[in-house]
Amino acid sequence: MEPESRMLEKIRKALTVRNRTIRELLAEALGMFILMLIGLSSAAQVTLGRGEFGQYLSINLGFGIGVTLGIHAAGGISGAHLNASITLTHCLLGNLPWKKLPVYLLGQFLGSFLAAATVFGIYYDALYDYTKGNFTVTGPTATAGIFSTYPAPYMSLIGGFFTEFIATMMLFLGILVIHDEKNNGALKGTQALLTGILVLGIGLAMGMNTGYSMNPSRDLPPRVFTAIAGWGVDVFTAGHGWWWIPLVAPTLGSLFGVLIHKLFIDFHNQPVLESGNEKRQPDVEISRM
Amino acid sequence: MEPESRMLEKIRKALTVRNRTIRELLAEALGMFILMLIGLSSAAQVTLGRGEFGQYLSINLGFGIGVTLGIHAAGGISGAHLNASITLTHCLLGNLPWKKLPVYLLGQFLGSFLAAATVFGIYYDALYDYTKGNFTVTGPTATAGIFSTYPAPYMSLIGGFFTEFIATMMLFLGILVIHDEKNNGALKGTQALLTGILVLGIGLAMGMNTGYSMNPSRDLPPRVFTAIAGWGVDVFTAGHGWWWIPLVAPTLGSLFGVLIHKLFIDFHNQPVLESGNEKRQPDVEISRM
Amino acid sequence: MEPESRMLEKIRKALTVRNRTIRELLAEALGMFILMLIGLSSAAQVTLGRGEFGQYLSINLGFGIGVTLGIHAAGGISGAHLNASITLTHCLLGNLPWKKLPVYLLGQFLGSFLAAATVFGIYYDALYDYTKGNFTVTGPTATAGIFSTYPAPYMSLIGGFFTEFIATMMLFLGILVIHDEKNNGALKGTQALLTGILVLGIGLAMGMNTGYSMNPSRDLPPRVFTAIAGWGVDVFTAGHGWWWIPLVAPTLGSLFGVLIHKLFIDFHNQPVLESGNEKRQPDVEISRM
Amino acid sequence: MEPESRMLEKIRKALTVRNRTIRELLAEALGMFILMLIGLSSAAQVTLGRGEFGQYLSINLGFGIGVTLGIHAAGGISGAHLNASITLTHCLLGNLPWKKLPVYLLGQFLGSFLAAATVFGIYYDALYDYTKGNFTVTGPTATAGIFSTYPAPYMSLIGGFFTEFIATMMLFLGILVIHDEKNNGALKGTQALLTGILVLGIGLAMGMNTGYSMNPSRDLPPRVFTAIAGWGVDVFTAGHGWWWIPLVAPTLGSLFGVLIHKLFIDFHNQPVLESGNEKRQPDVEISRM
Repeated sequence: MEPESRMLEKIRKALTVRNRTIRELLAEALGMFILMLIGLSSAAQVTLGRGEFGQYLSINLGFGIGVTLGIHAAGGISGAHLNASITLTHCLLGNLPWKKLPVYLLGQFLGSFLAAATVFGIYYDALYDYTKGNFTVTGPTATAGIFSTYPAPYMSLIGGFFTEFIATMMLFLGILVIHDEKNNGALKGTQALLTGILVLGIGLAMGMNTGYSMNPSRDLPPRVFTAIAGWGVDVFTAGHGWWWIPLVAPTLGSLFGVLIHKLFIDFHNQPVLESGNEKRQPDVEISRM
Repeated sequence: MEPESRMLEKIRKALTVRNRTIRELLAEALGMFILMLIGLSSAAQVTLGRGEFGQYLSINLGFGIGVTLGIHAAGGISGAHLNASITLTHCLLGNLPWKKLPVYLLGQFLGSFLAAATVFGIYYDALYDYTKGNFTVTGPTATAGIFSTYPAPYMSLIGGFFTEFIATMMLFLGILVIHDEKNNGALKGTQALLTGILVLGIGLAMGMNTGYSMNPSRDLPPRVFTAIAGWGVDVFTAGHGWWWIPLVAPTLGSLFGVLIHKLFIDFHNQPVLESGNEKRQPDVEISRM
Repeated sequence: MEPESRMLEKIRKALTVRNRTIRELLAEALGMFILMLIGLSSAAQVTLGRGEFGQYLSINLGFGIGVTLGIHAAGGISGAHLNASITLTHCLLGNLPWKKLPVYLLGQFLGSFLAAATVFGIYYDALYDYTKGNFTVTGPTATAGIFSTYPAPYMSLIGGFFTEFIATMMLFLGILVIHDEKNNGALKGTQALLTGILVLGIGLAMGMNTGYSMNPSRDLPPRVFTAIAGWGVDVFTAGHGWWWIPLVAPTLGSLFGVLIHKLFIDFHNQPVLESGNEKRQPDVEISRM
Repeated sequence: MEPESRMLEKIRKALTVRNRTIRELLAEALGMFILMLIGLSSAAQVTLGRGEFGQYLSINLGFGIGVTLGIHAAGGISGAHLNASITLTHCLLGNLPWKKLPVYLLGQFLGSFLAAATVFGIYYDALYDYTKGNFTVTGPTATAGIFSTYPAPYMSLIGGFFTEFIATMMLFLGILVIHDEKNNGALKGTQALLTGILVLGIGLAMGMNTGYSMNPSRDLPPRVFTAIAGWGVDVFTAGHGWWWIPLVAPTLGSLFGVLIHKLFIDFHNQPVLESGNEKRQPDVEISRM
């Protein structure tokens, strides 16, 4: 073992955390940071690059890839919620003790806020060049939309709420069927990739109206960051006070997604498994066609 | 177990369906709903976004990802037909009892219709903004093509029929070779992804002429929905009465696809397996190159 | 068993081919047909759609997805060469008996020719609309490039030859490392997908100069088809008699690719395997970082 | 065995290298050559094709696919560093003997330089056509950016340094979590693909400012090549002497990425594994939702 390696071993021991809760907080923070760093940067590159360095599809790809990597980062430790609505839903369903809720949310919010600050740092020169130093939420050189979501000009509040509600329901339905091992889930070890593809699909299908936040942890911390970093209180008043909808609609949508999955698929799947050989094998059927 | 969890357990038992047929109906409905929700939304976003929120490729990606997720949703229960032509072909080949046909079709049509209504809800504000409330099948702000397929202006009926016939044949050939375990199928657990990639490929290759419906369950229910929701009977008269072609051509195309696969690959593959060690291993050959 | 199924069983027996060589011919024909149907159609859609239904990347994706599906179709029977240069290289290296060469080539050429004819059928209306019935190899509404490859106007013959040579070398290097089980190949069952991604990569990197044919079976049969179908002998004289370069350059390039792989990787890998435990495990190293 | 095959066997024996170090050099050279051949070519095609043969996303895809194939090429022999910062980090952490450093770097630099020369050869005609023979680093027909990276006009040196630092940190975080078998890594045999997707994500998110070099071996050899091949010393003076930043910033960024991974995830994961059954299984939790 070389000296560097030995020194590292000592540092390792000093810095090792055995407390499960702190480890979950760290994992959620890192996973969220990765998700948001790639996602927000892709939004910045499309806006500030004036279409020369990517188009709307790049943002959809950016958030999809961010989600995939965030899940690889946190999946084995915290379950990679990376979304306050997912955490809350787990608590409501009794899968996660309520006392863990603030821990997960703190981790997610820290990671998200730090990612917003990092993206601000990376794109500071470009932001300045694009806006001449005038950071605005609306207008021809608006840049707040790089960080948090705002409704399109034509949207009503109720339409925006419904869009976020359905988009999050779709996100949950997708996550549940990708991971549904009793049914036809994705191959283990490829589920993070499939979840990223799901987010890509939702973005290119339902992103135009409201920016497909689907996630309080994705939306609120960067909004707070922009309020501090020069965009001001407009980030909360814009879109007829839009800011609370990405917090409430996704939470209701996620519960609805779980309910739909239960009612259409999952409730009825358990008993079949118990009586084993009743299960039909559709794959065989296809190859028999 | 926490109270929420216990309550959920009670609800679960009350709502559990043990009837296989109803479960298949529910699975086809949910799978179809997911497929169409992402697919139709991506078409809406491209049309209503005037190219700023995705281009034609986004629609191809949207339907591909929709198919992948729909298969993950329904695959373990109903075999994820998600297409009336597939169901009919299974019945004709004796793989599915004829009495199941109406069940599968009802499930598919319900899911498809509901998805069209949901997309209408999501994009109602944008539709209004784009059309000024005038929902038309043709003209500069035509929007019926978001929901169901119409031929391009230059298409003849016979050319459109042939396009749908070949596209569906390709869809079937692709599905069969992806799932062909006696031959060189895709890795189990990645077949849904590959089927989505197949649909992406068909869309970017054969989508321009007729909108690559390839599927009565994808086309008819949204067409009925638009007839009701304000586009009127034009949805049936447009394109020289185009509406029936996405019902008939895919069914013939799917049968032709099965036939081609049988004649070129599958009929001859069975006996080889029986006499085991005759099978050649091309992978070894590649690595020996 | 239902009547349809019983009838099918009889037909099956009558049509079953036990002759290995005919089965290889049929597999190469079908695999090539699938590859070319999706590939050529995507080129047609981009050209005839005037950029509204896909851009250059769609062609790259189309050929990539076509390759993936063609490999799934033919892989278990003929090894899915789908390329005369691959077949010839296998013969030269002693992996395939020379007497199989004409069988494989016939299968590939038939599949490729039939795909060209099918794409002509699908896009006949659009071709007519785009060209006003005047099918030309050059000029503002040239359409021969949909079917076979032509050099860009700025290319010299030597430059074009070199491009095809390097592109095919890259194709072979890629195929070999993807399938290299002694080294770090792709997961079994995902190799067809990876090969498609390789072709996508080559197309978006080296497609502009010469259309990245890399394959006599991809280029010659559609060229013959266009000569017959109305484009005339120009398809052979255009580009200073370009037509023979996609036959010769890929064959040399494929041999060079095999040589490079042997010299840099494969020759030295065998002995290490023999002395087993000497093998280093880089994955472990990464996780130890 | 046929004569060709026997001859090949003789050649094989004569050319077999048993020396581990030379094999690593060859593997790094070939992997780097593949990575750079596809990556640089895609940049050339976008620039010289004036947007008709791909857009910025094509470059991101090109480098992503190049990375995937480079890893398949070199992964089993050298660990596929393909990046001087990765090699240096391995040495600093004690995972690779220091005496291997020059070997790895030499291999990487040779492969990278050769790829630049090959791309110059492939695109020589197009370069000439585009620049009228005047190869420049700046100006309307600048082409040096095809080969090595330069900062955007609006960038400060400190901003550019920070961008490369964060991008490389993200690259390392991503590689580590994709390969983290103690946590939630990607399925074995798909890790090369995931690493390519990671590079795609970083490119479309953080490529605009500085060209996302993240790798001295990607940047310096092509820069030296362009200095020789006609672009002159401008390649070193441009961007206020930018050339040294893609050497230093990635090295610091990679160390920071390893540190973050250790502090947030890896240090705390080891002890859990030791006490086996303490480990929580988040996947189960999802399916229990």
